[in-house]
Amino acid sequence: MQALVLEEKGVLSLREIDLPLVVGPGDVRIAIHTVGVCGSDVHYYTHGAIGPYVLREPMVLGHEAAGTIVEVGSEVKHLKVGDRVCMEPGVPNLSSRASKLGLYNVDPDVRFWATPPIHGVLTPEVVHPAAFTYRLPDNVTFAEGAMVEPFAIGMQAATRARIQPGDVAAVVGAGPIGILVALAALAGGCARVFISDLSAEKLKIAGQYPGIVPVDITKRPFAEVIAEETGSWGADVVFEASGSPRAFDGIFDMVRPGGALVLVGLPVRKVEFDVAGAISREVRIETVFRYANIFDRALELIASGKVDLKPLITGTFDFKQSIEAFERAAAGSPSDVKLQIRLVE
Amino acid sequence: MQALVLEEKGVLSLREIDLPLVVGPGDVRIAIHTVGVCGSDVHYYTHGAIGPYVLREPMVLGHEAAGTIVEVGSEVKHLKVGDRVCMEPGVPNLSSRASKLGLYNVDPDVRFWATPPIHGVLTPEVVHPAAFTYRLPDNVTFAEGAMVEPFAIGMQAATRARIQPGDVAAVVGAGPIGILVALAALAGGCARVFISDLSAEKLKIAGQYPGIVPVDITKRPFAEVIAEETGSWGADVVFEASGSPRAFDGIFDMVRPGGALVLVGLPVRKVEFDVAGAISREVRIETVFRYANIFDRALELIASGKVDLKPLITGTFDFKQSIEAFERAAAGSPSDVKLQIRLVE
Amino acid sequence: MQALVLEEKGVLSLREIDLPLVVGPGDVRIAIHTVGVCGSDVHYYTHGAIGPYVLREPMVLGHEAAGTIVEVGSEVKHLKVGDRVCMEPGVPNLSSRASKLGLYNVDPDVRFWATPPIHGVLTPEVVHPAAFTYRLPDNVTFAEGAMVEPFAIGMQAATRARIQPGDVAAVVGAGPIGILVALAALAGGCARVFISDLSAEKLKIAGQYPGIVPVDITKRPFAEVIAEETGSWGADVVFEASGSPRAFDGIFDMVRPGGALVLVGLPVRKVEFDVAGAISREVRIETVFRYANIFDRALELIASGKVDLKPLITGTFDFKQSIEAFERAAAGSPSDVKLQIRLVE
Amino acid sequence: MQALVLEEKGVLSLREIDLPLVVGPGDVRIAIHTVGVCGSDVHYYTHGAIGPYVLREPMVLGHEAAGTIVEVGSEVKHLKVGDRVCMEPGVPNLSSRASKLGLYNVDPDVRFWATPPIHGVLTPEVVHPAAFTYRLPDNVTFAEGAMVEPFAIGMQAATRARIQPGDVAAVVGAGPIGILVALAALAGGCARVFISDLSAEKLKIAGQYPGIVPVDITKRPFAEVIAEETGSWGADVVFEASGSPRAFDGIFDMVRPGGALVLVGLPVRKVEFDVAGAISREVRIETVFRYANIFDRALELIASGKVDLKPLITGTFDFKQSIEAFERAAAGSPSDVKLQIRLVE
Repeated sequence: MQALVLEEKGVLSLREIDLPLVVGPGDVRIAIHTVGVCGSDVHYYTHGAIGPYVLREPMVLGHEAAGTIVEVGSEVKHLKVGDRVCMEPGVPNLSSRASKLGLYNVDPDVRFWATPPIHGVLTPEVVHPAAFTYRLPDNVTFAEGAMVEPFAIGMQAATRARIQPGDVAAVVGAGPIGILVALAALAGGCARVFISDLSAEKLKIAGQYPGIVPVDITKRPFAEVIAEETGSWGADVVFEASGSPRAFDGIFDMVRPGGALVLVGLPVRKVEFDVAGAISREVRIETVFRYANIFDRALELIASGKVDLKPLITGTFDFKQSIEAFERAAAGSPSDVKLQIRLVE
Repeated sequence: MQALVLEEKGVLSLREIDLPLVVGPGDVRIAIHTVGVCGSDVHYYTHGAIGPYVLREPMVLGHEAAGTIVEVGSEVKHLKVGDRVCMEPGVPNLSSRASKLGLYNVDPDVRFWATPPIHGVLTPEVVHPAAFTYRLPDNVTFAEGAMVEPFAIGMQAATRARIQPGDVAAVVGAGPIGILVALAALAGGCARVFISDLSAEKLKIAGQYPGIVPVDITKRPFAEVIAEETGSWGADVVFEASGSPRAFDGIFDMVRPGGALVLVGLPVRKVEFDVAGAISREVRIETVFRYANIFDRALELIASGKVDLKPLITGTFDFKQSIEAFERAAAGSPSDVKLQIRLVE
Repeated sequence: MQALVLEEKGVLSLREIDLPLVVGPGDVRIAIHTVGVCGSDVHYYTHGAIGPYVLREPMVLGHEAAGTIVEVGSEVKHLKVGDRVCMEPGVPNLSSRASKLGLYNVDPDVRFWATPPIHGVLTPEVVHPAAFTYRLPDNVTFAEGAMVEPFAIGMQAATRARIQPGDVAAVVGAGPIGILVALAALAGGCARVFISDLSAEKLKIAGQYPGIVPVDITKRPFAEVIAEETGSWGADVVFEASGSPRAFDGIFDMVRPGGALVLVGLPVRKVEFDVAGAISREVRIETVFRYANIFDRALELIASGKVDLKPLITGTFDFKQSIEAFERAAAGSPSDVKLQIRLVE
Repeated sequence: MQALVLEEKGVLSLREIDLPLVVGPGDVRIAIHTVGVCGSDVHYYTHGAIGPYVLREPMVLGHEAAGTIVEVGSEVKHLKVGDRVCMEPGVPNLSSRASKLGLYNVDPDVRFWATPPIHGVLTPEVVHPAAFTYRLPDNVTFAEGAMVEPFAIGMQAATRARIQPGDVAAVVGAGPIGILVALAALAGGCARVFISDLSAEKLKIAGQYPGIVPVDITKRPFAEVIAEETGSWGADVVFEASGSPRAFDGIFDMVRPGGALVLVGLPVRKVEFDVAGAISREVRIETVFRYANIFDRALELIASGKVDLKPLITGTFDFKQSIEAFERAAAGSPSDVKLQIRLVE
């Protein structure tokens, strides 16, 4: 089978590779239609590793995927051949203590696509557990289906935040994740979501959505805007989606007394953390690791029209152009949010 | 001062009445602009009592109000003369155990406008604590401001529900409260809200909002629709907003395993309750009594445009026509949602 | 293999029966040591059915069990031969939507011991998934291990209640479940737990625990005692553990404003439910269906000495005396809480 | 009136001072019986300031107090002359947005005893709002009553933690606050509480309570003990009560997947915070600022006997010996937990 293989750091090839396609009783086989290019895919390409996960042998990339069921295992009930689907890329041990608690995302034994040594799905067919495969509503395209995975991170953040209807939120960082967090927070109950960045292009993309208010922090401190807009009360929820250590400087000044800070971005090193600032407002701090029990709710919001992810797909490539897609992603234009690769003509 | 006075059951007069207007240090004096006619106002008019609250002497009606500040007490900081405002009609004892917990709505000592023996606000001026008076954002009209009180009940229901982003909700009953609950649930994070009624007119009003799906239960059982639309899983949250004892028949069949039922409607007698049905799906049941800490969030949603209450105002009367407004409300047309009385030309 | 078989309603025999003992990769085989006699076992014996679950062919009874591992499947890591264990009697489909949410107790496909047509464990050996098998700490006996299952119901109730440290609780009904709920509530953070019954014997058993206050409702209404003891504020949490429809009469008078009612008892018919009473105090109502993710925490409390279940074991029988044990349980002495059957000499 | 006055940094005098004693309608006048010496009192004595709170003129010290009502205001209902009471030292603006939410502890306008420029209560009589004055149950002594305030911090931490019955907790630091946190966590539902320190004396005091397990980190890393005792799963809740920046090194290794870290200790500077460590286990982090709605529940636990604070009172002084008490507290013996001053013979 053809696949986009990361041979080693910096070396991609689109080539034949032998991947098993055994369909167990609870599995489905899926013809992949569309795969999004994720920042983590690009990071493996450019750096060969993410934290403790190090590429040691060739690995197929890609984990944001949608496709069509072509075979179902003997015990699969909720899916059938021909169903259009998207997939959760992480498969936990469902018998683990974390999974039994409903926290399968933090099961230490989870196997996640395109995280060494697990192959990803930039290849025409994959086998996956039906329990982690979700039918696309008729009005949701494959391209949107392949956006569910990154959007699920935003949704997990919005869920952990425990938004109350009418809350005001602030999102630090208008990269792809920041924008998806803002959209999830807005659809998830916030009245207004302020989002900050240094990049005018990124803010322009975020600001096209009614309810999302872009704040250019080259012009004015984010905390000052939040104070002004909330009568010095602060935002009910602040999402840190930049991963920048500097974002933590004064971040609690933006949170209202008794409000929440949700950590989504992953700084590469430890950050300077103002415990006294957090305590003086009795801030609750939530953290977000991937997602669990989110895909069906994400699809509900996309299908209902409350969330429109299509404007975020800023480039689409044929499977043959996969390497080109990665090169463009690695170049990192601020006006690109999401590039996708189509495996089906 | 002129006021709309309920003299006794069935007898309204628009007449002079002597009402104190002493502004304490924490109070404001407000020139009333618009007052909505609430079902409870009408019920006092037609029945002379609601449960334990019995009209024993003449009482001014009206508790859904917006107006303009004309005087502020010496300690008031967040409001000034000229501010356009709306008001929470219940004033609790802030030192009570319930209030200290943030549950001031269930403080037994709360004094609530137009609940005997407390006068309401269908009169040109009232004095009210600044702490329960909320500034209207510039783009929120007085008419919308006077809708905040009934909307706050829907918001309290949506808040108690603990909606997770992308939840599916079902609302039983498309009366004014049912529609306001549906709007709050939708703005508050639901992807889709199904609402049921026997009245085609009411369903038509509810169904004008994208995301709210009307279900005519003269044609098909609500539970059947919910099962079909959720793949037999059930709604994440079911709101009972009809107050009909019959609504409880089979209601737990509509709730997903581990989901919630929120009781908003007030049946006039005890209902037949299926404990086994609730237990077998481990349903959480929340109840809603008025609202607390809701007005600012309700205003956020109205100002942001996420919630448009204007289509629900189906009639506006001059102060002089107040009795006419009550007669129309008492007649109870299914195509009327909210009638309002304007005290300012 | 020998087993206690319910042949049909009212007919028990201790006889040979052919039960499969295939150990899958994730399973363990357990030599049963002690099995408690549960009210549901007795109810199948005396009535042949519980609600929709009807005995149609002979079924082994028993689901409260402890024993010793005698074989482990190839993939089992956290258990080994010789480990003393107790078992969760319900095995869900871990891939189901409910299980993925952590709510495996409400998975509709759960298979539960001694619930027709699934055999129970009053037999020398059983095979069970390791994921639902829990190692007993060294200081926990087999007899206590066989108490974990019924205690888990009390623990589930205490968990659903969301007790805050120092809460005051009231438990309606001092049967076995009521007492176990009271113990879980007390160990789970309550300062005091009041428990009511008509039976002086039952109250005496409950009252032997410091912190549990028995209330004889033949002498004084429970609500009156709660009002007096809480300065008319009400209990933070009321647990309904009697299953009596009459218990619902005035039950919300016992709950503090904003407090909780937890429904554990299963009335045989619908109850008269005072929605207005619940709403006026904005009571949250939780329901309890078996348990999920409780066994390890139950064992923690038993091992730490915070909960002593031994005084509740009021009779122990040899396996040969199993029918005698059931006859005594069916006779229903108020001074019996839990009878157990030992399969190992 | 006599009072213990901090004249300036390092200078205490027991002298006459003129303090107003006007009893408003909602106030009570209290004859002070016992006052505990708090670390913050001592810190003002030794440093003249705590963070932004700087002593600029003479101030009476003391905020952990119990006494007897000698006068009640005209509107006070729940207290009468002769009642034995303890008092919450912070008086918020009950009309503030934070107070209305039930979060009166984070109201920016709170006035707190012995926090400049507000006088404390080391003086024979004070006037206080009845709403923040709590009747002592008959079996609770004045000495215990004066312990409620520091215990309330532990209770707030245990409440914020959202302990589930049977949880395992770890407390970093066995100073007075660490021990009180451990006691609150244990009474509040934990099965076992591990507590760490470098000081054998402090650990000995903590370890006298069954259920609290002292861990001497000069001998073995705390994380290693927690891993061993929880089968490498981690503690459900970790409380940071040392205020030491070093405590944050590796702290997330001690928390189970999906568990909580509660920050109680106040480091004097920013700490190095491992966001990646927190995220990888999706840890929830709560912070604790004083307490709100805790005193009545703290008193419930003391009165019920679940929490015994008496062994923590390691020295009692007459009012005349107040300065001596402060000198001993400032000397800081590891075997001292709480010193108290009695104003009544």
